[in-house]
Amino acid sequence: MTYTLSQITEDIGVDFHGEDITIEGIHTLSEATSTQLSFFTDSKYASQLADTKAAAVLIDEKHAGLLPSGTIALVTDEAYLKLALASKFFAHKLESGTSEPTLGKGCDIDKSVSFGKNVTLGDHVVILPGCYLGDNVTVGSGTLLHPNVTLYHHTKIGSECIIHSGTVIGCDGYGFAHTKLGEHVKIYQNGNVVVEDDVEIGANCAIDRAVFGTTYIRKGTKLDNLIQIAHNCDVGEHTLCAAQVGLAGSTTLGRNVVMGGQSATAGHLEVGAFATIAGKGGVTKSLEGGKTYAGFPAIDHKMWLRLQAKMMGLLKGKK
Amino acid sequence: MTYTLSQITEDIGVDFHGEDITIEGIHTLSEATSTQLSFFTDSKYASQLADTKAAAVLIDEKHAGLLPSGTIALVTDEAYLKLALASKFFAHKLESGTSEPTLGKGCDIDKSVSFGKNVTLGDHVVILPGCYLGDNVTVGSGTLLHPNVTLYHHTKIGSECIIHSGTVIGCDGYGFAHTKLGEHVKIYQNGNVVVEDDVEIGANCAIDRAVFGTTYIRKGTKLDNLIQIAHNCDVGEHTLCAAQVGLAGSTTLGRNVVMGGQSATAGHLEVGAFATIAGKGGVTKSLEGGKTYAGFPAIDHKMWLRLQAKMMGLLKGKK
Amino acid sequence: MTYTLSQITEDIGVDFHGEDITIEGIHTLSEATSTQLSFFTDSKYASQLADTKAAAVLIDEKHAGLLPSGTIALVTDEAYLKLALASKFFAHKLESGTSEPTLGKGCDIDKSVSFGKNVTLGDHVVILPGCYLGDNVTVGSGTLLHPNVTLYHHTKIGSECIIHSGTVIGCDGYGFAHTKLGEHVKIYQNGNVVVEDDVEIGANCAIDRAVFGTTYIRKGTKLDNLIQIAHNCDVGEHTLCAAQVGLAGSTTLGRNVVMGGQSATAGHLEVGAFATIAGKGGVTKSLEGGKTYAGFPAIDHKMWLRLQAKMMGLLKGKK
Repeated sequence: MTYTLSQITEDIGVDFHGEDITIEGIHTLSEATSTQLSFFTDSKYASQLADTKAAAVLIDEKHAGLLPSGTIALVTDEAYLKLALASKFFAHKLESGTSEPTLGKGCDIDKSVSFGKNVTLGDHVVILPGCYLGDNVTVGSGTLLHPNVTLYHHTKIGSECIIHSGTVIGCDGYGFAHTKLGEHVKIYQNGNVVVEDDVEIGANCAIDRAVFGTTYIRKGTKLDNLIQIAHNCDVGEHTLCAAQVGLAGSTTLGRNVVMGGQSATAGHLEVGAFATIAGKGGVTKSLEGGKTYAGFPAIDHKMWLRLQAKMMGLLKGKK
Repeated sequence: MTYTLSQITEDIGVDFHGEDITIEGIHTLSEATSTQLSFFTDSKYASQLADTKAAAVLIDEKHAGLLPSGTIALVTDEAYLKLALASKFFAHKLESGTSEPTLGKGCDIDKSVSFGKNVTLGDHVVILPGCYLGDNVTVGSGTLLHPNVTLYHHTKIGSECIIHSGTVIGCDGYGFAHTKLGEHVKIYQNGNVVVEDDVEIGANCAIDRAVFGTTYIRKGTKLDNLIQIAHNCDVGEHTLCAAQVGLAGSTTLGRNVVMGGQSATAGHLEVGAFATIAGKGGVTKSLEGGKTYAGFPAIDHKMWLRLQAKMMGLLKGKK
Repeated sequence: MTYTLSQITEDIGVDFHGEDITIEGIHTLSEATSTQLSFFTDSKYASQLADTKAAAVLIDEKHAGLLPSGTIALVTDEAYLKLALASKFFAHKLESGTSEPTLGKGCDIDKSVSFGKNVTLGDHVVILPGCYLGDNVTVGSGTLLHPNVTLYHHTKIGSECIIHSGTVIGCDGYGFAHTKLGEHVKIYQNGNVVVEDDVEIGANCAIDRAVFGTTYIRKGTKLDNLIQIAHNCDVGEHTLCAAQVGLAGSTTLGRNVVMGGQSATAGHLEVGAFATIAGKGGVTKSLEGGKTYAGFPAIDHKMWLRLQAKMMGLLKGKK
């Protein structure tokens, strides 16, 4: 899907006068290529403006002058809302029906499984009844999908993975721009999910596709049931998440992180390698690796234990 | 489905002597019509007795005299249990098989989708593989159901909605009466769910049908993944709920409420318009709109921040 | 599936020299029979060594002498890892396709339902579209499976149960051994789930099969939506769990326990009969029955209320 910039700007209501160009997608300032549209919505990224390779950028008047000469400034005081409107141009078209996947050797695929177009499976893949694999999905050798798994378009699953029933991978991230009237306008989530090799994912999990780029579940990671991984997270290698864990958007876990049941993180933060978050913990800021944390807001585990003791002391009239 | 009152009272073990009448359903004291059965199980509703239009009411002896003359008193000291037993009469009969829905223009419906009887779809509805739409479901124009969505009977979905995979709408609310032996008797949930226009619901959510009446998800609301909405909730327009939120029964959110990830509310309370509940917050009483709350029990957000500071102070030996 | 002990030990890299025997499965020291392999990985079970009936035990050198004379010691300093490797021998082989179940009278089974081999249904069972019942599943009379339910192999569902859509029963428990490099090796979960009579389970729940033995949901228990029950739990009769509850592995709830929404327990503990855990409570140790608890860590409910009052007092400058 490609569009001319004038098609897009006319539709979303942004002024553009100049030689028309072809736009093939949308990405962030730092990742956009010379055929992609980008956007500037947060002043903390101002330093990225000078170096962007984007073809055009939705931007407020004040910062437009910071763009390089080859990048078209699309001036608007509602860049985030215009981004949302533009994102719909690049949404994947979803259609019913089932196609023939490209199969490796020795696959065992139930007849009830539905495939989008251009699905590729490795050797000895087993897919049980009621699964759905959308357009351009790939699944590596030796991977097992239990019944009623849903893989949205462009999801990539590695080799020797196990995905349990009811799990949904590649569903839309939760991203909206907001109008002045308090309405929410969908930012179409045109990225994908990559699940690397040797990953096991429990039942009824939801792993969101990236808004741009990729949500990663790295090699050897094991997720329990009913887990939420938001868009653009990067879950490090050999990480363990117990049931009902939730990660908000764009959070990175290092390798061998352990998250206890019902623990969660806020978005846009980093949990260092070999950190452990106790059950029900709530991570509100980036945490150093190699340590154990507990509570909400999550603090050092020993400190949390002392805090509990102090609180029990309150009940006994101690200070 | 209609029954005579004598059929019902005989089955549930309540005395009734008088001219028999036809009963078409069950509803609360304030909502019941002249062909419906009602019940009195909580003295805080005593003021509604005089005005009820119900044909008959399950009620204790002490309050029976407060009913209007046209309403039959069905005297019992176990009104809630008898209600549960009576509710089964009006349970929708569930059957296998698939029927032809009434289709609008330009719909794209996968062949694997199962339809109950009397399903009506608007124009340009897209339904991907593995979905189920029960009897009397309606879906408005332009709505998209991702794979493996389940809509129970009588669910109404508006126009331009997006429902992600694995989500279940219209499942039974969690309601039981209890015997003296500690057994739980199901109160059949004979209400429904209405999802208004422009709503998006993430993956693997569960939205319960009302016990009587309707559970509402109002216009423009956006729900993330793995969310629980209990029976008889009313989620206001343009509300945002992040992943793993849970609302207990009969709770009302005003418009443009924001609930952070893993936050929750108790039942039978109101959160005012434009209120924000921080992640992991737990709402235990009704909250005024326009403010931000945090913690469990949820309090004013700034107060919660001060409380956290005081608690950290405890660790340092400060009072 | 049976193997010779030498086949297993050669594969997992443990020394074994002696007369070969046939092994039919793996179980704990106390439960293993004379044709089963067992393991010793936690010194708190040392007292069980002398009485084990296991054919052979994976065990460290120091404790090997405590085994009875008829039991073969398989000496290793990585017994847990070797157990994980051995568990794969007894994993159930999963295959696509559908078989004819053995049906009782008056069943109503949708044509889209997939059955493994050797499934047995009682009378008047209703199974709606998109369900999957794996090998050797049994379902008792009068039970209703809503659309898109998944029952893994060897799950046993009682009579007069209701299972709501999207729920997964018998998925693998979350059990892994760990290598010195920080990789996780799956312990195949070769037990099952038994759901007794008169149980109702809400939508999108996940109930894990036992690693060995059985995960139990006892008679008359009612679970709400989005609940996690980990492997080897035993949920007592007539217990109520509200939405989004999570039980970690091997936890036992007595009869008529009540767990509020989003409450949870750690693993390997007991909650006594008729105990109530308030919403969002987190149980970190075994709790006596008949009482109400709240908070995290969960304490006596009245104590918790006093603690909240004390904390509010902190904000007002009181001690």
